[in-house]
Amino acid sequence: MSNFEARDLTEGLNGVLGFHLVDWRDGFAKIAVDLDERHKNRQGGLHGGVTATLIDATTGFCGVFEPDPEKRRGNVTVSLTTNFVGRAKTSTIICTAKTVRAGRRIYFASAEVHDSDGNLVATAEAVYAYVDRDAQRKPSGK
Amino acid sequence: MSNFEARDLTEGLNGVLGFHLVDWRDGFAKIAVDLDERHKNRQGGLHGGVTATLIDATTGFCGVFEPDPEKRRGNVTVSLTTNFVGRAKTSTIICTAKTVRAGRRIYFASAEVHDSDGNLVATAEAVYAYVDRDAQRKPSGK
Amino acid sequence: MSNFEARDLTEGLNGVLGFHLVDWRDGFAKIAVDLDERHKNRQGGLHGGVTATLIDATTGFCGVFEPDPEKRRGNVTVSLTTNFVGRAKTSTIICTAKTVRAGRRIYFASAEVHDSDGNLVATAEAVYAYVDRDAQRKPSGK
Amino acid sequence: MSNFEARDLTEGLNGVLGFHLVDWRDGFAKIAVDLDERHKNRQGGLHGGVTATLIDATTGFCGVFEPDPEKRRGNVTVSLTTNFVGRAKTSTIICTAKTVRAGRRIYFASAEVHDSDGNLVATAEAVYAYVDRDAQRKPSGK
Repeated sequence: MSNFEARDLTEGLNGVLGFHLVDWRDGFAKIAVDLDERHKNRQGGLHGGVTATLIDATTGFCGVFEPDPEKRRGNVTVSLTTNFVGRAKTSTIICTAKTVRAGRRIYFASAEVHDSDGNLVATAEAVYAYVDRDAQRKPSGK
Repeated sequence: MSNFEARDLTEGLNGVLGFHLVDWRDGFAKIAVDLDERHKNRQGGLHGGVTATLIDATTGFCGVFEPDPEKRRGNVTVSLTTNFVGRAKTSTIICTAKTVRAGRRIYFASAEVHDSDGNLVATAEAVYAYVDRDAQRKPSGK
Repeated sequence: MSNFEARDLTEGLNGVLGFHLVDWRDGFAKIAVDLDERHKNRQGGLHGGVTATLIDATTGFCGVFEPDPEKRRGNVTVSLTTNFVGRAKTSTIICTAKTVRAGRRIYFASAEVHDSDGNLVATAEAVYAYVDRDAQRKPSGK
Repeated sequence: MSNFEARDLTEGLNGVLGFHLVDWRDGFAKIAVDLDERHKNRQGGLHGGVTATLIDATTGFCGVFEPDPEKRRGNVTVSLTTNFVGRAKTSTIICTAKTVRAGRRIYFASAEVHDSDGNLVATAEAVYAYVDRDAQRKPSGK
């Protein structure tokens, strides 16, 4: 781990939710988050959106490993399916994601979310498209 | 709309992200969010997790319509698939969700996310399980 | 409907299952099937694979409208999510599919399956990639 | 393997497609199919519906292990997501499925399809509901 961590996960939603990058290698990424009031749903449990966001962040990383953000390939999520298989029983959840197959234009990733005792919380599959990073930044309209 | 709105969407992640409930009826819900720095991904675009969270919140509402939170049925997401079909070109996105089919124990919902100019941003399908609300609150371990 | 129908749906699995193309236009397709012993699962009900195959065939058609198969664009399924929302109560099921968004390289489609009384059986979302048809034919390895 | 094999996979669509059960244990199933004309799509490649049907059959088995069909629990597919990650390069494909989590009413399964050289063809996630088998047989309307 190096200084890309601070930069990559302090901005935007990843920063708002307190995600921290635990591991990142070619075809693999691991992101953890300590749960508090920010992560709750209206029923007081873990918001499914936290799990989905954590998975999206982690699968987004695993397919574009490159510590230098200036050289890193851009990517956008095409499709994300999350199955919420169990409850988190501890206050930290960790997502591990791996690249299943990478083509020229798209890549497939799978992910699992566990709590810190190893209980499985969610499984997921994602499809991403590689994009030109400058093109990505412009059309967001903000 | 009544006072359930303030209560339901100011707590937890829905509050953190600034979601506001625009419409809620039996089998239907509509939630909007004005986008700012909180909602960005590491590339400066809209974080896919915002879209997924917005969909999860909206499909979560549409299946359990009941203004009084004390009487409302509890629910948990079982499976959520989101397809990210286009970019938001304005700084507000709106999710509309409807209940496709409700059984005794589970319900199916579909959702679409548009920007404020009507551009389609995402489509989604969700499966929810109804749960006892008290049971839901306890095992979260926090 | 014209002579593309006979040719397109008598070959391979579509022919084995007795699919017939009811409608096909730019961005839209409709395929029906009369259910018999071929379509059952080991429990005697409708095999989920029939529903998924019907959806795959129909979403595959809707994105590449072109009556002349020689001129038609090739495509491959990237991702398909099917939610099985209800039981067919008649012995014919019909899938309608529409193109939700088509880009240069991929398209998104959604589909619904009803029985002939209009009962909803399944909903689905699919992602397809356009491919060169000659390339498609070769690597199948058979 | 015992005499359940012949009975379970010769009926209905599983029989039409020539599926054969290779392994079946608690929480695990493996089904193979030799590809021929029956399994082709209109472009001459492997029909995505074959892959989806194979996955549905295999994930359907893994969650209800019980050699005696009379004692076996019934189940119906709730949701199935298939990602088509690569081409089959041999003329046999094999699906392995495992139960990820089983609750009282639903279970989650994941599956992978490889060709006989080990090339990954598809990954999938499924949600099933357990049902009363007699109830299952009746409402099919046929």
